[in-house]
Amino acid sequence: MNMEATDDEKSTTLSSSRAGRAVTLLPTYLTDARAVQKYCRSTAPEGALQLSVAENQMLEDLLVPALTKFSSSRDSFPADAIYYQPTHGREPLRNALTNYLEGLLDLDKDANGTLDPEGIVVGAGCNAVLENLCVSLAEPGQGVMIPLPYYAAFEFDLGSRAGLEVVPVPTMEHSSYDSNSSSSSSPPPEAYYLSRAALDAAKQTSIEENGIEPRILLISHPQNPLGICYPPHVIEETIEWCRDNKIHLISDEIYAGSVYQKDTADFSSTLKVASSSPSPDETGLGLGPYVHLVYALSKDFALSGLRVGVMYSENQEIRLPLQKLNDLCSVSSHTQNLVEDMMKEVSPPSSVHWTQGFLEENQRRIRERKDAWQSCLKELEIPHLDATAGLFCWMDFSEFLPEEGTPSERERALYLELLQEHGLLFTPGDSMKNELPGFFRCVFTAASDHEFELGMERLRKYVKEKRA
Amino acid sequence: MNMEATDDEKSTTLSSSRAGRAVTLLPTYLTDARAVQKYCRSTAPEGALQLSVAENQMLEDLLVPALTKFSSSRDSFPADAIYYQPTHGREPLRNALTNYLEGLLDLDKDANGTLDPEGIVVGAGCNAVLENLCVSLAEPGQGVMIPLPYYAAFEFDLGSRAGLEVVPVPTMEHSSYDSNSSSSSSPPPEAYYLSRAALDAAKQTSIEENGIEPRILLISHPQNPLGICYPPHVIEETIEWCRDNKIHLISDEIYAGSVYQKDTADFSSTLKVASSSPSPDETGLGLGPYVHLVYALSKDFALSGLRVGVMYSENQEIRLPLQKLNDLCSVSSHTQNLVEDMMKEVSPPSSVHWTQGFLEENQRRIRERKDAWQSCLKELEIPHLDATAGLFCWMDFSEFLPEEGTPSERERALYLELLQEHGLLFTPGDSMKNELPGFFRCVFTAASDHEFELGMERLRKYVKEKRA
Repeated sequence: MNMEATDDEKSTTLSSSRAGRAVTLLPTYLTDARAVQKYCRSTAPEGALQLSVAENQMLEDLLVPALTKFSSSRDSFPADAIYYQPTHGREPLRNALTNYLEGLLDLDKDANGTLDPEGIVVGAGCNAVLENLCVSLAEPGQGVMIPLPYYAAFEFDLGSRAGLEVVPVPTMEHSSYDSNSSSSSSPPPEAYYLSRAALDAAKQTSIEENGIEPRILLISHPQNPLGICYPPHVIEETIEWCRDNKIHLISDEIYAGSVYQKDTADFSSTLKVASSSPSPDETGLGLGPYVHLVYALSKDFALSGLRVGVMYSENQEIRLPLQKLNDLCSVSSHTQNLVEDMMKEVSPPSSVHWTQGFLEENQRRIRERKDAWQSCLKELEIPHLDATAGLFCWMDFSEFLPEEGTPSERERALYLELLQEHGLLFTPGDSMKNELPGFFRCVFTAASDHEFELGMERLRKYVKEKRA
Repeated sequence: MNMEATDDEKSTTLSSSRAGRAVTLLPTYLTDARAVQKYCRSTAPEGALQLSVAENQMLEDLLVPALTKFSSSRDSFPADAIYYQPTHGREPLRNALTNYLEGLLDLDKDANGTLDPEGIVVGAGCNAVLENLCVSLAEPGQGVMIPLPYYAAFEFDLGSRAGLEVVPVPTMEHSSYDSNSSSSSSPPPEAYYLSRAALDAAKQTSIEENGIEPRILLISHPQNPLGICYPPHVIEETIEWCRDNKIHLISDEIYAGSVYQKDTADFSSTLKVASSSPSPDETGLGLGPYVHLVYALSKDFALSGLRVGVMYSENQEIRLPLQKLNDLCSVSSHTQNLVEDMMKEVSPPSSVHWTQGFLEENQRRIRERKDAWQSCLKELEIPHLDATAGLFCWMDFSEFLPEEGTPSERERALYLELLQEHGLLFTPGDSMKNELPGFFRCVFTAASDHEFELGMERLRKYVKEKRA
């Protein structure tokens, strides 16, 4: 009996190469962060403030009583929830989500049509439904185009099991912004917009230089980490390019309910832009086979612990495969019932859905934090995008970059300085493949009021010292 | 804008080949079954009795009040359950499962050691944790050996996304049973036992004839569909063969709590047999890297709707990958808390765990059904294995096979006759790759008392007609 393998055999007998590869796809900047003591008011007042994970910690006062109510709103555990469920989700939940999404995404019955509940798949998180959607659309080794900068975990979600390659889509050189000009200021929002030119170039580079055939374009809309929305004309151009090129467009609208600056955001769901008034007696939005949506409760409702993701597509070819593949990542019937009750709850006396009231209050709170954070940035003259959606602000710290090293080395030095010497943990742009070094994402909702105030104080101190 | 693809383009632009392949891996016998009207006492009294899906419908009277209690046992929704959880499961749940599994699998602290809670991964169903375990152990295109007959859905679970090939392990020709002898009766349990000879032969065939390298041996223990347990000496020989051949042994013990005939079953968990008394101050069973367990609540607790699967391994190389991959199929914190409370519940006054009392009562009920079903089979002189575990009985209907056709065609004709003319839906052995035609699995727990009685009545009538 030989239970110990030699070093040589290790990679072949104890684990698969994909197990090892999966781990390498995880964002590495968090390894540095884990080595640093975290802030605690009583025990570690000098510890680092975690402002890099996209969570919203300002909602417990609303969520705890509401979830307590929804999780005990049925007199007894429903007997039918004991057994196997439809693999793509219980019908009453899918119907409730249909209704919720139509409101959230501002779909008009006459102009856009209605969602088809059979096109909805409810799975264990946005990453789970996204993975299955991509598995159903692309072969291993094919590419998923993603505009820069992008949510770092997409590389793990799409690469680890589905075997897909992320194809970066740089946008700056195709915009009017010139980062090489000596007089150039920080990039404006337009520098990050998608365009036919940017998409054509990225596709060509992928095929010709890397031998990877792109099959999917994945956009995050509202954009994470930028905190802005692509304007409707950009979405329209993107949809047309995808249909022309027979490339699948997946719109990740996980922050659709966190558009808090409605006066300037100009958010239009990709589903709304892509819909073509179908005949009134049909269900569906007339999206055709190339436009798909993913959503989840993790951001707008801060319920990342519930692992509830939603996928919507009108592509008939992938419908059955997606429903069946979802058997490998289904949500418990118990939690499906909770979410159904949450989606259906109507608050008296105004007969408004609980979800709507919750999102409005959440948007108010995010806006308040955003205003305070951006006021601080303005006071310190740190360039940043004017955030309108999401939980974060995109900041240009390039003036603080050290002179020496490659762009990545320079940014890493700045990241470590902020983290280790000033207790500020932001998401570094390099981990999101940003085109220019020195940019950081601040998640201003991932903190208590006290921690948030302390974060601004530390930032002021940092800037003062650096400029002294 | 071109939204319609031509027929030629369809397979390349609208969906991936793996989406199409996934659907082909699903068991096909259910397609016939779906076309037949199901039994309903009031509206379809001639409809078919569904005795083919491994569910236990005899427990609602116990489960509904218990789950109602567990799902409201906390005063309010715990605030920490809102946010991201450890990807392999909340620590209190993994600790509770450690304790539960040690009892269930009869692990003795002194002789076997204790489970390491960090080796436990809680994911969205047994299929979900099994898939990730196999992904972490084998490359796409490599093989998973499974003894015949096997649970048909393994082909989907292992093939659809993980890209693994099922390598059948026939056992009969390596046993003393001779199916070709004119005097041969129905195969005894021993004919289905694993042996070094059967494993060597299957491995060789796989490599030499099919070019598939087996990396994993997956056993179902207690065995589904046979309803029996492999005796300890078979498990021991199997473990040794795996370690000698550096092939990973995954023991699927999802029916470990449904061993109802303790006097004759002789069940020993693979973990118990594989453990090597470790030093008392270490955690773990000393399993080494080649022995792994999967389990779930779907069978022993009839809670297939909760999608709670459990994986246990002491292989350090796959620990981090498995924990991270599980992020793609996590269980909601809400349901994790319910299961934790269920695992911890102690019933006064005897201080016995609720789980233990529940399993004992469940075993009593299954045994009662088994006794009644096997009495009926004996009365009718239908050969069958004497079931000791699980929810089913393995029956030899080969005397009723028509003369004409291939073995598969003959069995399919018999299956359709039972289904369409006699309203009896059993799982056909051919769908589970059984070596001989004419065998069926009857899930005698998937019915109300009335339906169960009716099933026996219909079977008596069928046999009488056929032998007339």
